[in-house]
Amino acid sequence: MIENPLHLLMNPQSIAVVGANNIPTKMGTVQALSILKDGYKGKFFPIHPKEKKVLGSKAYASAEDLPEVPDLAMLIVPVKSVLPIIESFGKIGTKRAIIVTAGFKETGAAGQKMENELNEVARRYGMRFVGPNCLGIINSQISLNTTVFTMDKEPGLLGFASQSGTYVTQALPALRKRGIRFSKAISLGNEANINIVDALEYLGEDVQTKAIILYIEGIRDGRKFIEVARKITPHKPVLAQYVGGSVSGARAGLSHTGAMAGPDFLYNGIFKQAGIIRVDSVEDLYANGWTMATQPPLKGNRVGVMTNSGGPSTTISYICDSVGLEVPRFSEGLQKEIRKHIEPHASAANPVDLTFDVGIQKLAITIPEIMMKSGEVDAMVLHGVMMTGYMREIYPHLKEMTGNISLEEFLKFSQPVVKEAFELPRKYNMPFLISSFFDEDDCYTKGYQDSNIPVFRFPEKTAIALGCLYRYKQIKERALHKEIILPEINQLAVDIIRKAKQNKQKALNEHAAKKLLSCYGVPVTKEELASTEKEALAAAAKIGYPVALKACSWEIMHKSGKGLIALNVEDEIMLKKEFQNIQKNAGKAVPVLVQEMLKGNREFLAGMTRFAGFGACVVFGLGGIFTEIYKDTTLRTAPLADADAREMFADIRARKLLDGFRGMPEVKKEKLSQIIQAVGNVSLLHPEIAEIDLNPIIINGAKPVVADALIVLESNPKT
Amino acid sequence: MIENPLHLLMNPQSIAVVGANNIPTKMGTVQALSILKDGYKGKFFPIHPKEKKVLGSKAYASAEDLPEVPDLAMLIVPVKSVLPIIESFGKIGTKRAIIVTAGFKETGAAGQKMENELNEVARRYGMRFVGPNCLGIINSQISLNTTVFTMDKEPGLLGFASQSGTYVTQALPALRKRGIRFSKAISLGNEANINIVDALEYLGEDVQTKAIILYIEGIRDGRKFIEVARKITPHKPVLAQYVGGSVSGARAGLSHTGAMAGPDFLYNGIFKQAGIIRVDSVEDLYANGWTMATQPPLKGNRVGVMTNSGGPSTTISYICDSVGLEVPRFSEGLQKEIRKHIEPHASAANPVDLTFDVGIQKLAITIPEIMMKSGEVDAMVLHGVMMTGYMREIYPHLKEMTGNISLEEFLKFSQPVVKEAFELPRKYNMPFLISSFFDEDDCYTKGYQDSNIPVFRFPEKTAIALGCLYRYKQIKERALHKEIILPEINQLAVDIIRKAKQNKQKALNEHAAKKLLSCYGVPVTKEELASTEKEALAAAAKIGYPVALKACSWEIMHKSGKGLIALNVEDEIMLKKEFQNIQKNAGKAVPVLVQEMLKGNREFLAGMTRFAGFGACVVFGLGGIFTEIYKDTTLRTAPLADADAREMFADIRARKLLDGFRGMPEVKKEKLSQIIQAVGNVSLLHPEIAEIDLNPIIINGAKPVVADALIVLESNPKT
Repeated sequence: MIENPLHLLMNPQSIAVVGANNIPTKMGTVQALSILKDGYKGKFFPIHPKEKKVLGSKAYASAEDLPEVPDLAMLIVPVKSVLPIIESFGKIGTKRAIIVTAGFKETGAAGQKMENELNEVARRYGMRFVGPNCLGIINSQISLNTTVFTMDKEPGLLGFASQSGTYVTQALPALRKRGIRFSKAISLGNEANINIVDALEYLGEDVQTKAIILYIEGIRDGRKFIEVARKITPHKPVLAQYVGGSVSGARAGLSHTGAMAGPDFLYNGIFKQAGIIRVDSVEDLYANGWTMATQPPLKGNRVGVMTNSGGPSTTISYICDSVGLEVPRFSEGLQKEIRKHIEPHASAANPVDLTFDVGIQKLAITIPEIMMKSGEVDAMVLHGVMMTGYMREIYPHLKEMTGNISLEEFLKFSQPVVKEAFELPRKYNMPFLISSFFDEDDCYTKGYQDSNIPVFRFPEKTAIALGCLYRYKQIKERALHKEIILPEINQLAVDIIRKAKQNKQKALNEHAAKKLLSCYGVPVTKEELASTEKEALAAAAKIGYPVALKACSWEIMHKSGKGLIALNVEDEIMLKKEFQNIQKNAGKAVPVLVQEMLKGNREFLAGMTRFAGFGACVVFGLGGIFTEIYKDTTLRTAPLADADAREMFADIRARKLLDGFRGMPEVKKEKLSQIIQAVGNVSLLHPEIAEIDLNPIIINGAKPVVADALIVLESNPKT
Repeated sequence: MIENPLHLLMNPQSIAVVGANNIPTKMGTVQALSILKDGYKGKFFPIHPKEKKVLGSKAYASAEDLPEVPDLAMLIVPVKSVLPIIESFGKIGTKRAIIVTAGFKETGAAGQKMENELNEVARRYGMRFVGPNCLGIINSQISLNTTVFTMDKEPGLLGFASQSGTYVTQALPALRKRGIRFSKAISLGNEANINIVDALEYLGEDVQTKAIILYIEGIRDGRKFIEVARKITPHKPVLAQYVGGSVSGARAGLSHTGAMAGPDFLYNGIFKQAGIIRVDSVEDLYANGWTMATQPPLKGNRVGVMTNSGGPSTTISYICDSVGLEVPRFSEGLQKEIRKHIEPHASAANPVDLTFDVGIQKLAITIPEIMMKSGEVDAMVLHGVMMTGYMREIYPHLKEMTGNISLEEFLKFSQPVVKEAFELPRKYNMPFLISSFFDEDDCYTKGYQDSNIPVFRFPEKTAIALGCLYRYKQIKERALHKEIILPEINQLAVDIIRKAKQNKQKALNEHAAKKLLSCYGVPVTKEELASTEKEALAAAAKIGYPVALKACSWEIMHKSGKGLIALNVEDEIMLKKEFQNIQKNAGKAVPVLVQEMLKGNREFLAGMTRFAGFGACVVFGLGGIFTEIYKDTTLRTAPLADADAREMFADIRARKLLDGFRGMPEVKKEKLSQIIQAVGNVSLLHPEIAEIDLNPIIINGAKPVVADALIVLESNPKT
């Protein structure tokens, strides 16, 4: 196994910085100060053409002048200087670099060329680098911070790979206030060399990192990404935000890091396949990531809610329901026990509502402990614990009454902090989250945060975070992914494609497409190709009326709405009429496919599209006329295991339609799974195929049968 | 017009408080201090049985001892004392009260009885009150605050009616940090007397209130709520959070304020009908409400994004797309003008990204002004303006370099605040929102907030808030609601119902249901009722094969899956067989409905259910086998105008199916609208009807025809 390039980059014994001087407004200086002042114990070598000393350290004129070979070079220099400087480090034997400088691929063709050259130079010297156009890295384990902001002293637990530098730096003060701390964080920039897959792999191996978050504008090596993620997610949670999947989002990302974005449904699918939990905002990325990093696994879906105010507890309960959790009504026995501690008008049923009461002991310890001990909950949410925050609030009102004492003196009247409150959550090994309107200026918000108990500023967020824990429970319970062995390539299928290509076809006709699919066991409609009316009559007699007639030519890829299809052809008279109709509407003599009419109210679709970086992706979903209406589809990359197909079945909103439904029998799911798997296999065995579209797959009784098929060929097949 | 009871309650010249003493930990004392210390200029009379003075004011032993009749009485007393005290105030002529005390309806039957008595006493004395089980009110216009927390000095613009006291009080410090200030806020408690409809009406009339937010666990007088809201929303935005629509949420709410919750889809529908924007969290309620209260209307959907970091701008762009907005690529001319002010590698296309640059002038003024002037944007979002927040961040790193000066001294090195930044947003009369990771400890966050420019802590939230403004634009563009005149009651319909009731039927049979609907112009299938095979054959001959056969008896409300329906009966032989089958499956002789078989791939549904407080509600949506699968329906209360029906058409996800679709003609929407309106009218004209279910309504060609109908009768009709 090749060592991940980030091992050395994140753990250098010595760092050379080019671009720092003694002017504190310069970005390079600010970044060098982060290295110098946040506790990093390694060596620091500033490189400066003129200065003798930079930030108190002896400066060197160039890489060649350094007294030793630094493990890491960091460049914050004008874009024109990047190449020669990297080369100079290459020459002395430095193997890792961080290139902060922007102005490469994200600016267009000229920038892309420079970026290629940069990569070429690095390759020549066996050098690996992060960037360009990034803001650096954080390794809290060795107190190394190369960003422009100040890092927390206390090492963190959350690993972050980000295609935005801002989210690793500018967000730091906001995170500090919420008690959220990175184990490692990497601003990836343009990913010319080290990319998000390397970062994900590194964070997956990193023991300090308990959960991983990813901010993504686009992934280039999608296949590798899934492979790596799939190994990590069974034992370490990964959350991702993806923002490239819209017109405006994709354009913004392109000008930001030059990322090529793909559609939302692609990323939705690959995240699911890889066991990654998608979130919708960077706030949720941080906060839910922190929850995953700090909290024990959720063992069930029952949430206990303890509060001193009804609004938040009602709100939390409502959101819990919407993410698959429940706030169960407590047993009579448990309620009785709780009632000993609360006012007669307060509710003991769960949520337990103390009503207005600032008694911390009951709210934060006694009753939560009764709830956790009971065996009736799997997680706890607590709202309303507060002390100095509350005291600050009422101080202006009480100032006069207390002889105009200062706020500091007034705060001394606060009840002493009950430290047990911060220890309780660990005692019963279940997730424990806090909802509070108070920032860290309240001693309880601060105390919980300092004990790695997440505090959410608004109640809904606690339930959403628990929802992520619940989702991760399901991910861990999935069967482990196993290597998929592809079937043998089928010679008849090869011949069908070769013939079509010789014929300069851009697609197979429906009949040929179905023949090809049949080679791999896909069930298709009984059908015969007829060039004449006579042949058509004979075919229909053989298949049995009613039949369907369809113009069959590769040039007619989309037949509907053009008078090229006749359904429910009941007898010879009708057949003759419709056969002529089709010829007329086609405008020339066209072969007609005579096909059995399948009975079945349920129609699905399966298909394949290739996406750059991700290769062949298989889509499954609702077919027929509702395809465009509900866009109820789900995607996975090929090849697929039966388990993948089963997850796809569970993934669509119309999943109930696959079960026994309204008197219809349960669909033979193993057969449907085989079709979906075959679509994936065919795509991998025959790279000449660009696209597959099977719609509808009619459920005939319980059995899925492909009733229409389109196979489009690649103009430039990838092998 | 009766004056809204809150006018006097919110604007009292004098307040008597019962339940305050001189112990600062007592809730009543804390609330009295809020009245005394937040600037209220009216008179304050504490009532106390023993104390001579309370909080420095002369105390009175009882209401009878007061030197004058106070406008408002506020009670924070044990539950047993509430009734006699209210009675004593009634006797002296006090007309308004706030009852903070809990322990009424929310505790069960005994509490409900007490609450009824309380209302009875109030009625006797013409007294109106807020509560019980509430936390009081805020009227920032007269600096009146009766809650337990401290109110902002500066009057606000946002009106709040809340079924949670916490959201009016405990949230205040969090809101203050975000610059969000209430005009008026009302904690409604159990709504024994003054309810959320009164509060909504009051806030609608209040000139100080520029936008209204509602926190809702359940609405009792739903009809009145819609009526009142419908008058307000064309000229003042109303946002609502509803949390009663889940099992856990409903139970939590019931024990909180005794609110009876209804299902989510009911509230979704009535919010839409009333022009209320629904939000999913209390954070969005506050933040988006504040945006609506402070920002000018949005005139189009084009958003300009200005930033110094790519992550947030990509994220904002992505979310904009998802809420119907766009971040358009700027014209070449505009880009050229912007390029004069930015680095060559930075993007001028929109988002405009300065990249790392702390130059406030360009980021906050020069370039945003160019964008706003251009006519190419309708709203602005700015991310990354910061100064003292940033200085605080880098201080630990620069402390030594700057001779170990204090933070305060260091902050003096900050560039002076450019005040113009806070004036610019108002200059071009378009929404202007800020995204920043910095709290109000940054001078720009504070400056914007103090100028009523909303600052969001995470970038996504700006786009979501703009989405609310965009939604409000659509609401204002709706046709104004007009009084709907019901048709005359139809005598045949009356007879059908009377006959069924004489017959002790719980429902009409399908044939009778369709006859009744026909009386009001609803198109139904051609059909005849047949008691014998012979009659059935005659009917089929008349209607024309193929036909459908259905067992027709009011006792068989749900026929599917029981062998009681035969579709596509093609000839006499098949009819005879199926007729016998139905008799056999029914287990006894049953009349059979012989019905034309309609052709049509598109199936919709319409129906009616009565909800407590809301009366007859009409549902429209996708019908047929997908009804349960996609639950793609929308609801409005009856009666419906054509405009309401058209909004329902636009509301379902399958809306495209109503247009020309895949070669099918556009549905005759005026006919479908008539069906939906008729369902509403029938419900109002015939209160004996409990439920109506028309499913499917088949689109035959372009024409909607009701193919199946169920009308359930009320056991205890409401009139």
